[in-house]
Amino acid sequence: MTAQTLPFGTLIQIDRKSATPVFRQLANGLIDIISKGQLKPGYQLPASRDMASMLKLNRTTVVAAYEELQLQGWIETIRRKGNFVSGHLPITKPKSFHSTTLANGTAMEPGNFYRTVAAPQSGTRKLKPQQLMINDGYPDARIAPLDVILDRYRFLSKRTNTCNKLLSEGALGSHSLRTHLSLFLSRTRALDITPEQVLVTHGAQLAISIAAKMILQPGSTVIVGELNYVLADRLFEQLGARLIKVKVDEDGIDVEAIERICKESRPDLLYIIPHHHHPTTVTLSAERRIKLLDVIRRYRLPVIEDDYDYDFHYEHAPILPLASADHNGYVLYVGSISKTLSPIVRLGYLIGSEDFVWQASKLKQVLDIRGDVLLEESVAHLFSAGEMQRHLSRSVKLYRKRRDQFCELLHSLTGDIANFIFPNGGMAVWTVFDPGYSIPQLAERLSDKGIYLNDGSLHRYKTDVNGIRLGFASLNTNEMQAFARALKESR
Amino acid sequence: MTAQTLPFGTLIQIDRKSATPVFRQLANGLIDIISKGQLKPGYQLPASRDMASMLKLNRTTVVAAYEELQLQGWIETIRRKGNFVSGHLPITKPKSFHSTTLANGTAMEPGNFYRTVAAPQSGTRKLKPQQLMINDGYPDARIAPLDVILDRYRFLSKRTNTCNKLLSEGALGSHSLRTHLSLFLSRTRALDITPEQVLVTHGAQLAISIAAKMILQPGSTVIVGELNYVLADRLFEQLGARLIKVKVDEDGIDVEAIERICKESRPDLLYIIPHHHHPTTVTLSAERRIKLLDVIRRYRLPVIEDDYDYDFHYEHAPILPLASADHNGYVLYVGSISKTLSPIVRLGYLIGSEDFVWQASKLKQVLDIRGDVLLEESVAHLFSAGEMQRHLSRSVKLYRKRRDQFCELLHSLTGDIANFIFPNGGMAVWTVFDPGYSIPQLAERLSDKGIYLNDGSLHRYKTDVNGIRLGFASLNTNEMQAFARALKESR
Repeated sequence: MTAQTLPFGTLIQIDRKSATPVFRQLANGLIDIISKGQLKPGYQLPASRDMASMLKLNRTTVVAAYEELQLQGWIETIRRKGNFVSGHLPITKPKSFHSTTLANGTAMEPGNFYRTVAAPQSGTRKLKPQQLMINDGYPDARIAPLDVILDRYRFLSKRTNTCNKLLSEGALGSHSLRTHLSLFLSRTRALDITPEQVLVTHGAQLAISIAAKMILQPGSTVIVGELNYVLADRLFEQLGARLIKVKVDEDGIDVEAIERICKESRPDLLYIIPHHHHPTTVTLSAERRIKLLDVIRRYRLPVIEDDYDYDFHYEHAPILPLASADHNGYVLYVGSISKTLSPIVRLGYLIGSEDFVWQASKLKQVLDIRGDVLLEESVAHLFSAGEMQRHLSRSVKLYRKRRDQFCELLHSLTGDIANFIFPNGGMAVWTVFDPGYSIPQLAERLSDKGIYLNDGSLHRYKTDVNGIRLGFASLNTNEMQAFARALKESR
Repeated sequence: MTAQTLPFGTLIQIDRKSATPVFRQLANGLIDIISKGQLKPGYQLPASRDMASMLKLNRTTVVAAYEELQLQGWIETIRRKGNFVSGHLPITKPKSFHSTTLANGTAMEPGNFYRTVAAPQSGTRKLKPQQLMINDGYPDARIAPLDVILDRYRFLSKRTNTCNKLLSEGALGSHSLRTHLSLFLSRTRALDITPEQVLVTHGAQLAISIAAKMILQPGSTVIVGELNYVLADRLFEQLGARLIKVKVDEDGIDVEAIERICKESRPDLLYIIPHHHHPTTVTLSAERRIKLLDVIRRYRLPVIEDDYDYDFHYEHAPILPLASADHNGYVLYVGSISKTLSPIVRLGYLIGSEDFVWQASKLKQVLDIRGDVLLEESVAHLFSAGEMQRHLSRSVKLYRKRRDQFCELLHSLTGDIANFIFPNGGMAVWTVFDPGYSIPQLAERLSDKGIYLNDGSLHRYKTDVNGIRLGFASLNTNEMQAFARALKESR
């Protein structure tokens, strides 16, 4: 028998002492399975030789049973092809995952044993073939050194000992990648960390999930921006926490409001995106940053600093992350490699004190066991070969140019129906339409012209903000112009 | 400026109206950064030309500042290489992630703002170079069609529209993979499901995590086997649930005990591994299976059926999963592609009613956004090309042979110190040593002989069970013999 077919040996009971001939027992057994719907119309029965070996029967017995089934109309025999369950059967639909009737005659209703999840699902609208995608701020996967990663991946995959070694490294993630990340983050962000303070995760979202789960319990309170990255809000709610919303203006989140909240209550967590805030792209001013660090220290306020976009700024020098200042381990730092390379490469990281990261690695193991060790090791190779650094330099130059181009087009096309913030960094333009303007309807009209636009439902969770993030980093000149033409005709 | 260096533009404030010369302001600014430890010994300062452009200064000003720093001993100049922060400085260690002193003079202690996680971390012992790994039941990655996956991955990665389409498919996972899985599971396990009932996840552990989180809350109760897969126990505890342990004997879990518990209380979940139970490899008998299905229906008991090993049985035909019978959506089914292909390929799936899977996909999005869409699509290609089926046939044949070989060796070597269960399927042999025998010490002795053996800490969470899973599927004849030789000399 092989793993590729149903286990007929256990499904069909043959009783050699029965008065019913064995071939008929087999036929009846198969009819039973077909009636239950476990063998669906069109299913090819094993060849008589294979079936005979599975059931330890004589082959002629199986042939006789198949003939019986054919005569009764349960199966159809196609010459040189085999025996197939007939397509014209009044079979009972199997009820495994549907409503059913209990032995005592009462109906068993679908259960309410599980929660419903209040969150947008991004997969409700699908890209049509040949549509151009306007995402909400992805890098351009076409310029990522994916071939270098794949070459390395293939090379490493042939080395059994390397693979085993990586598998034995545990839930922290590839040691080599953690070493390169600690050096890179030290050089670019003045984070003074060791590899033991880096937890590699399957994407930055999982890093936020793990950090939040390490801190929050049902009933905890989390300070978040208003607006905020929607999937972070929904995550904290899923963990049973209550959100305390604090306004975000052009200088970032209102730090005085955060201090007032800390004075009044003891919030359990602050979630903040100081650079290129999501969705608005504003950056926390240096003044507020200094004030916030003081609040963090005085109130011992745990912080998740989501810095998914740090490497991409175009105007002036970036402000260092909160995590680079004195905070005694209260600031947890989350970054994304998916944003640096390609949304297809799911890699992120979480930085904290050595003990925090060790505890978090155990939580990661319990939730997810381990990451993609060969992918992690291959990305580490990008750093050691200098490819990551070259890629970043190229990307920043290119995206700065694209931002300028895109904003110019956007200005000329939306001046009277929308306002946007010229972003200092990142990969998207936060565009706020007039209150009466329907973004979902715009998305519909653009769709007819071959443009896929997120209709903003992932960001418009507050009814009085009619905004959308328009990603420019992944669009070349032709694509921008195609978008502009479609927008001109559709607005 | 580039993304590759510290943002000196914001770190150093130059006041052109000050009485202090600009070059000295720059030097003092750099001294300040070095003293804080943000620039570590050995850090290479940007070339004077780059620094000048970042700070919008004249290059000669920067050269003067660097000379000043060199004279004061803060930096060292190496000809033709550049300027480096000196290695002999009495600098203050930065305190970001360490204990610090507050402005009011009191010490700020490392926080207890986060939980400690009671779980084994598998990465505490690392494989040494050239050591042979005896894992606890992995497939042999060397026979997996990884090249076919990588070729497909590379091919798809060049097709921007395909990538964008996959990214737009949302959190359920690749539609193509879900379609192939639903056909495959229907053919091999009589699961009557549509692609909308399949959630693809980053490994089976994440599938269990998501399913459990959909059902459990702090205070919930979960029936588990004793013994049980340790990471499942630890996961349920992390979700705040209480474990109710039910004995597992040679016929699987004690179903009468489960019924008694259901009568007495209302447990929220049963977690069960009916095929090749982890760690003991026993299979739930057909009789108990029928009884259990009755209990599930009568008490409306939600079940996570973890069937990570279904495709690998060697003796007789497998028993169909609980999920293939009538249960009205109460049985959630978890499977692993990592176990089918290679531990390096992290893919699993969760099967449930269409509504359950939709809700779970929203939870997955909030925890993890999405999976590795190109990997998923490339594995779907394995199915459509027939490669997965061929690979499974080959694997089952090979692993059956390896099981026989391995058990013969094991029998001759451990007869007087350990007992093992000859497994009907799966990839490991559950070996129970005499109570006084130290598996960690055995692991130490084997390590000296070039064999890496999990010391059993992942399974020995009960002090009265001195067992370990010995994976045979990934060992060829030479490797088995090397293990046998080392075991003979070390036992």
